[in-house]
Amino acid sequence: MGTTLAQLAELVDGTVFGDPDQVITGANIIRDAVAGEITLMDKPDQVQLLMENCTASAVLVSQASDKLTIDGIIVANVHEAFGKVVRFFQPWEQKQNTGIHRSAIVSLAAVVDPTATIGAGTVISDGVVIGKNTVVHSGVHIQAGCQIGENVTIFPGVVLYDRTEVGDRCIIHASAVLGAYGFGYDSSTGKHILSAQLGNVVLEADVEVGAGTTIDRGTYGTTLIGEGTKIDNMVMIGHNCRLGKHNLICSQVGIAGSVSTGDYVVMAGQVGVRDHVHIGTGAALGAKAGVGTDIPEGQQSLGIPAGPIKEIMAEHMAIKRLPDMRKTIKSLAKRIEQLEKEAEAASTPVIRKAS
Amino acid sequence: MGTTLAQLAELVDGTVFGDPDQVITGANIIRDAVAGEITLMDKPDQVQLLMENCTASAVLVSQASDKLTIDGIIVANVHEAFGKVVRFFQPWEQKQNTGIHRSAIVSLAAVVDPTATIGAGTVISDGVVIGKNTVVHSGVHIQAGCQIGENVTIFPGVVLYDRTEVGDRCIIHASAVLGAYGFGYDSSTGKHILSAQLGNVVLEADVEVGAGTTIDRGTYGTTLIGEGTKIDNMVMIGHNCRLGKHNLICSQVGIAGSVSTGDYVVMAGQVGVRDHVHIGTGAALGAKAGVGTDIPEGQQSLGIPAGPIKEIMAEHMAIKRLPDMRKTIKSLAKRIEQLEKEAEAASTPVIRKAS
Amino acid sequence: MGTTLAQLAELVDGTVFGDPDQVITGANIIRDAVAGEITLMDKPDQVQLLMENCTASAVLVSQASDKLTIDGIIVANVHEAFGKVVRFFQPWEQKQNTGIHRSAIVSLAAVVDPTATIGAGTVISDGVVIGKNTVVHSGVHIQAGCQIGENVTIFPGVVLYDRTEVGDRCIIHASAVLGAYGFGYDSSTGKHILSAQLGNVVLEADVEVGAGTTIDRGTYGTTLIGEGTKIDNMVMIGHNCRLGKHNLICSQVGIAGSVSTGDYVVMAGQVGVRDHVHIGTGAALGAKAGVGTDIPEGQQSLGIPAGPIKEIMAEHMAIKRLPDMRKTIKSLAKRIEQLEKEAEAASTPVIRKAS
Repeated sequence: MGTTLAQLAELVDGTVFGDPDQVITGANIIRDAVAGEITLMDKPDQVQLLMENCTASAVLVSQASDKLTIDGIIVANVHEAFGKVVRFFQPWEQKQNTGIHRSAIVSLAAVVDPTATIGAGTVISDGVVIGKNTVVHSGVHIQAGCQIGENVTIFPGVVLYDRTEVGDRCIIHASAVLGAYGFGYDSSTGKHILSAQLGNVVLEADVEVGAGTTIDRGTYGTTLIGEGTKIDNMVMIGHNCRLGKHNLICSQVGIAGSVSTGDYVVMAGQVGVRDHVHIGTGAALGAKAGVGTDIPEGQQSLGIPAGPIKEIMAEHMAIKRLPDMRKTIKSLAKRIEQLEKEAEAASTPVIRKAS
Repeated sequence: MGTTLAQLAELVDGTVFGDPDQVITGANIIRDAVAGEITLMDKPDQVQLLMENCTASAVLVSQASDKLTIDGIIVANVHEAFGKVVRFFQPWEQKQNTGIHRSAIVSLAAVVDPTATIGAGTVISDGVVIGKNTVVHSGVHIQAGCQIGENVTIFPGVVLYDRTEVGDRCIIHASAVLGAYGFGYDSSTGKHILSAQLGNVVLEADVEVGAGTTIDRGTYGTTLIGEGTKIDNMVMIGHNCRLGKHNLICSQVGIAGSVSTGDYVVMAGQVGVRDHVHIGTGAALGAKAGVGTDIPEGQQSLGIPAGPIKEIMAEHMAIKRLPDMRKTIKSLAKRIEQLEKEAEAASTPVIRKAS
Repeated sequence: MGTTLAQLAELVDGTVFGDPDQVITGANIIRDAVAGEITLMDKPDQVQLLMENCTASAVLVSQASDKLTIDGIIVANVHEAFGKVVRFFQPWEQKQNTGIHRSAIVSLAAVVDPTATIGAGTVISDGVVIGKNTVVHSGVHIQAGCQIGENVTIFPGVVLYDRTEVGDRCIIHASAVLGAYGFGYDSSTGKHILSAQLGNVVLEADVEVGAGTTIDRGTYGTTLIGEGTKIDNMVMIGHNCRLGKHNLICSQVGIAGSVSTGDYVVMAGQVGVRDHVHIGTGAALGAKAGVGTDIPEGQQSLGIPAGPIKEIMAEHMAIKRLPDMRKTIKSLAKRIEQLEKEAEAASTPVIRKAS
């Protein structure tokens, strides 16, 4: 399957430079593109990489450059245009037909909007409400009383325990689990007796939940994820947590029970946060940080245990210098020893020397 | 939907103080409760928080207090009573009807107790046995020869590989995987050839397994989880491990192959344990600890690599003081230099001075 | 159920020593085997363990030993033989019948080889191709345009997003998710706007993917896992990554976006790798390492941040000695103080002394 550069230019509303009849057979990023394919350049400093390490036959750019010796198309928005081109060459895309698949199990006591889509084998229990244009893929399990908003996408294998609420435009990726029991026990008898598990999970609007992520229900109340907060794959969020708006929580972060965060908090990969801690608005936690105490607004933290990034970096530098420090101390000790010998010699009565 | 304080008092077998006709519209924890709702106070020192930061209209307490200026109910067990009240206001709860759902796929060579429940789309293979009152939710996959005890709960999306055994009263949360292959290879040929995968996973009674947790099968034998041990979400337990009784394993802990633990071991979040290590009874591993060697009974450990908690805390303190230590060393060096100069001056022959 | 040692010897093509009529009722590893069972010894130094701590009635070995006082069978390959014996005693094993289960949902626009197996409730979308002898277990979701090779095994609950490609002989364990969206956003407007999600995931031949592992799709191109690379449970591999051949990636490793690795790279448990880093061929990353920069070929690294293993071990040793170092510094300071006093005394004019 191929097309001409001129045809692609029409698709993306751009202007050809070079040969408009050049045949293009696919689209790929600079790292992967080969002869016959079109690629994209979103930064001027990629020219060298493109010209020296890539055999692509054409390129999408936002402005012409003398250094480009291959054909191409000039467009207003490179990423938007390249997206259209990539889709043009993709033979198959997962498309959902509106309606309820014949193999789905939908409770008569559930309300599914006629514009919503329910995939094969998906189970919708009593009291569930599914909003307009929402797409629930195959093999999703939505337990009793869940409220799902409009334009939500739920990928296969997701499990929503009873009474989970999902705001408009949320995206929940495959195998995520919302509403499982919190990890709280009364161990006073020598056995671990599970605490109450009567709460639920609420996602406000525009939240994204990554594949395999788990968010536990509140004990009596709600575990809440604020509007616009994005959560990566395999993140664990404990019971009773309250995350603010527009947080970015990277993969494999673990947040223990009853943690709260302000808005625009960023947690890098594999961060761990102790229970009942508060992370202030705009705070950023570096990768693998272990947070045991409240973090003030806007503070950048790092380390295990976490501290202000400058302090931790200084500690890391100091640790690197430890072997040198040991040498310095040894040399100082020798010089002191020498001084002590000299002092002892000086203090010896002259008479002995004279003898 | 509302009710009166008097009606709630009857529900929880308690005694009203204040206005028995006060209308209550919901139940929530102090952090979240608003006007019209009833909350709970399980510690006397929450009075201030309740009175100053919460607009709840009523409270459940175990004893009266002058400081409480809102209505309420006195009960013997606050948590038990509040659980009843919360449930009273919850419109939907996931309830399973006993029996096998028409869409479940149950092998004719499986034995399912008539009091058990098998959810929609759940697959039960040859030779499986399901005990009394056990509830298997929708979308669960139980492979050949698995033995499931009585009063077990298995949530949607769980996968039990062949010959997994689950003791009475176990709870297995959504998307947990028991019995996948261990990560063991013979790499002597330059390729990684998978080792034997003939063992299984056995959970003794009263074990809880968190959402997304994976426990790998033994090579030839059994990976065993002892009675009453509770495992949080996204924990990884490797092949051939033997966990003792009443362990508490928090979220995102990783336990490599052939690890054994005594009883009442506690591992905090994101701990990692090397293969073939033994963790003694009553030992506790702090968050993010990296354990590479056996841990004695009752020892509290922390750090990467893990050591006794006191030593590691002392090291952390010492690292914090490193910048000061560097300053001290510099100042000592200057003082030594000064002493050396003075010593040299003192030892200079008088004759030169005189000249 | 029992058999004789002679019958087992015939099964494994071995030679009996001791009593051929000895009845054997099961097979287990040394740690677990009890009277009546046969065990295996794959290293000569296990003789003492076997003789002193195990009550097994027989043993499989590769050569005779005077120290063995129980019966046994000598075989050429102990592991191969013991595998046969273990299977002999296992009543149930998950077996797939070739063909498409009646409850599977297979698109008319998919091509499934007649020798392939599709399990109960599995969903195969438009344009999917499934190769010869491939086994797709129950409850698997394969979205549009996926290409699955020959002799592949896919366990229950796996989700393959659209256009995922899986090479011959790959094994994908339960609940793994391939092709979910990458974690990339344009945050310039104050909201986090999802980047393009047009790429896919490609596994070359002989790749193994552990239970619950997630591999995200490329932005426009491919996230690639090289031939023979083995990935353990709950590993996260970000968008646009390119892993080389025959890597070993242990459990709970997190690899951020656009990371590349050479061949034969080993990452131990809970390692984290920053985005856009390259890990050279033959490099090894120790458990919990936090890698922020490129790693040269063959280098062994450890620590957070990661460094060459010798340097990091030296730092750990130095940290252990910090308390001693503090004591040394204090004692040096005292000795300097003493020297300073003496020097002051020595420099005091004689006349004062005389007075």
